[in-house]
Amino acid sequence: MPAENHDAVEVIVAKRDGHPLSDSQIDWMVDAYTRGVVADEQMSALTMAILLNGMDRREIARWTAAMIASGERMDFSSLTRPTADKHSTGGVGDKITLPLAPLVAACGVAVPQLSGRGLGHTGGTLDKLESIPGWRAALSNAEMLAQLDDVGAVICAAGDGLAPADKKLYALRDVTGTVEAIPLIASSIMSKKIAEGTGALVLDVKVGTGAFMKTEALARELAETMVALGTDAGVRTVALLTDMSTPLGLTAGNALEVRESVEVLAGGGPADVVELTLALAREMLAAAGVTDVDPADRLANGTAMDVWRRMIRAQGGDPEAPLPTAREQHVVLAPADGVLARLDAMAVGLAAWRLGAGRARKEDAVQAGAGVEWHARPGDVVRAGQPLLTLHTDEPDRFERALASLEGGYDVVPEGSRPELTPLVIDRIG
Amino acid sequence: MPAENHDAVEVIVAKRDGHPLSDSQIDWMVDAYTRGVVADEQMSALTMAILLNGMDRREIARWTAAMIASGERMDFSSLTRPTADKHSTGGVGDKITLPLAPLVAACGVAVPQLSGRGLGHTGGTLDKLESIPGWRAALSNAEMLAQLDDVGAVICAAGDGLAPADKKLYALRDVTGTVEAIPLIASSIMSKKIAEGTGALVLDVKVGTGAFMKTEALARELAETMVALGTDAGVRTVALLTDMSTPLGLTAGNALEVRESVEVLAGGGPADVVELTLALAREMLAAAGVTDVDPADRLANGTAMDVWRRMIRAQGGDPEAPLPTAREQHVVLAPADGVLARLDAMAVGLAAWRLGAGRARKEDAVQAGAGVEWHARPGDVVRAGQPLLTLHTDEPDRFERALASLEGGYDVVPEGSRPELTPLVIDRIG
Repeated sequence: MPAENHDAVEVIVAKRDGHPLSDSQIDWMVDAYTRGVVADEQMSALTMAILLNGMDRREIARWTAAMIASGERMDFSSLTRPTADKHSTGGVGDKITLPLAPLVAACGVAVPQLSGRGLGHTGGTLDKLESIPGWRAALSNAEMLAQLDDVGAVICAAGDGLAPADKKLYALRDVTGTVEAIPLIASSIMSKKIAEGTGALVLDVKVGTGAFMKTEALARELAETMVALGTDAGVRTVALLTDMSTPLGLTAGNALEVRESVEVLAGGGPADVVELTLALAREMLAAAGVTDVDPADRLANGTAMDVWRRMIRAQGGDPEAPLPTAREQHVVLAPADGVLARLDAMAVGLAAWRLGAGRARKEDAVQAGAGVEWHARPGDVVRAGQPLLTLHTDEPDRFERALASLEGGYDVVPEGSRPELTPLVIDRIG
Repeated sequence: MPAENHDAVEVIVAKRDGHPLSDSQIDWMVDAYTRGVVADEQMSALTMAILLNGMDRREIARWTAAMIASGERMDFSSLTRPTADKHSTGGVGDKITLPLAPLVAACGVAVPQLSGRGLGHTGGTLDKLESIPGWRAALSNAEMLAQLDDVGAVICAAGDGLAPADKKLYALRDVTGTVEAIPLIASSIMSKKIAEGTGALVLDVKVGTGAFMKTEALARELAETMVALGTDAGVRTVALLTDMSTPLGLTAGNALEVRESVEVLAGGGPADVVELTLALAREMLAAAGVTDVDPADRLANGTAMDVWRRMIRAQGGDPEAPLPTAREQHVVLAPADGVLARLDAMAVGLAAWRLGAGRARKEDAVQAGAGVEWHARPGDVVRAGQPLLTLHTDEPDRFERALASLEGGYDVVPEGSRPELTPLVIDRIG
């Protein structure tokens, strides 16, 4: 508990005037905001000042520590296996957590994955898993620990006890135009991951039109900030900068992405999803100190699929049950012979969202079967009139707005021209 | 009423990212905030972004117009006399409104002076007048108009109907560290003065330690912004930049300042108070088109005092009743023979406040008799052991903190050295 008492206006004015906040000011502000002593309008003025005037590394670390201190910390030290977790800053078609968690567990490292629901154009891991009949996201801490011990992997909703300051602050930032502040993004993500108690953490920081960070420079700054925060807190942390100008795999949507993830676990699936899953798995294993296992083998020999089935069953799901499908489809045909030169992640993400795969407000429901499938990836040859995209929804009146968001979202260029393709993994930081 | 609908986050993000707000965005934001559709935490994020990223002249004018449109406008066109008002940005010992309003009325120009209460180290005109037994600040619009018609001068509280957006916004800025934004200060002052319907306006923009604007550059920027706003709205507006490094006159405190004001109206009083009163009166008369009257004559011949007595009586006050005095006094003696080289306005203002003349929170009461008297002004010769300051309060336990705020607040230098004194009127803008 903070020893010193402060005044909200004093703290706001200090940051407004470009001064670094003291440890004591940060401790007091975060604690007083959590307790309701500092009002929402005071915290929003401070977050705007932080967004515009920045925070140095010490301030960000202290802010993160204060958010952790606002709630409980989990403890996995009773497990016999080392732990490793992954966090993605969010992208379109990013289903990697689904094959990754059981794969890493199959390699001997426990994966305690606390996930969220989708808001806006990026999907949420919990929404995807909830398309599996019977599967439930809510586990108690004891259930989570037992499942980690038994199965080795768990993907579930974060409890209310973890970093409650972050929960309150995130809701505030969402309505006050202060989401896009790197110190606040970094401390929000890292406070939950550090409080969660994982031993190692791999960050998948997305760059591109479909990502939160549109430029490599911003993504790099966020990645470096988070790696420093994790390392300082004793969590072995590395980050990959990965491309999100093109959506991942061949599907965006809840059940559609579960199906694709199961294909990967069965040894197939789109090459980019397999590549990124393996790259992240290798980083998680290395960070957890496991260097003698090749995750590609565990995909090939079916042990990752075994863990997936046990993980789904442990949370009430039936991994053999047919996945829901949408009632209506609309097919978009290739406009000409040529090469697909570009498929814009944001356009696809918005289309999937408008088809019902995502939500506009927290309280909205999502459609399990809705989403977008694409039948070619940038670089692939297409023929005029072949299916290029299939749109799925339960409500056909959603097609029009989804199609509008796809307009200008892809280019087919004459065969022979060489489209410039971005590598999937851009850089490694840590 | 705004035709176009906007989203609060869209408006906040635009200003956050350094873009000028459109007329339609400003109209919607101010109106929606007044109606409670935009939440306090959203408006405070916007005001912080305005403070840090600024507003151009068009934006400030539109913001001011939107605040005026949030409430009623007064109309003095039925008066036979022209109207002129004065606004001071606030200082220590600044009782000028008290002699000024009846003096200008005695010269044939009606003065509709809507005033406020003090908060912090600067006194409030209404608090000062309320030390007169029986006087009341609250008048209806009809009573105000009748008194203007009959007496020619009125000093009263602004009603709730005038620029309600400003009232709500000011209370928010006060607790969110966003008071010090020139676009918001200028639009707050000018929205009320324009809505009040005065034909001419003279601004007394204070500069120095005891003023809100500590530097001449900031004071000049504020003055120029307000003069442009007034002129664009059809109000003949000029501003004087005046010194507030030294407090005005010889007293700071409610009844103490009324006594000094009556001395000025009686043809006496401190030279600086007389000088500033006459300078502002001449500007008000000129702006109202009256050029054939010398206000110094109306002070000398007692007609200004006659208007004062009628003005006080019209609002229930007894101008002949003895003014309240504080129960306790503490005298500070000159520490040495020499010349008083400096008397700091902020030190005196804080001392008066701590003695009970001002309030820390809006709901606090003030002491009528509390305050500070000084018996020499910068430039005056003093003798060791002579009374330099007299502190007045009803509660003697307040002396200690008041004395602490005066420490280092004045200098007595050897006789013969020439202290550098700032001129009272620094510049004229408009």
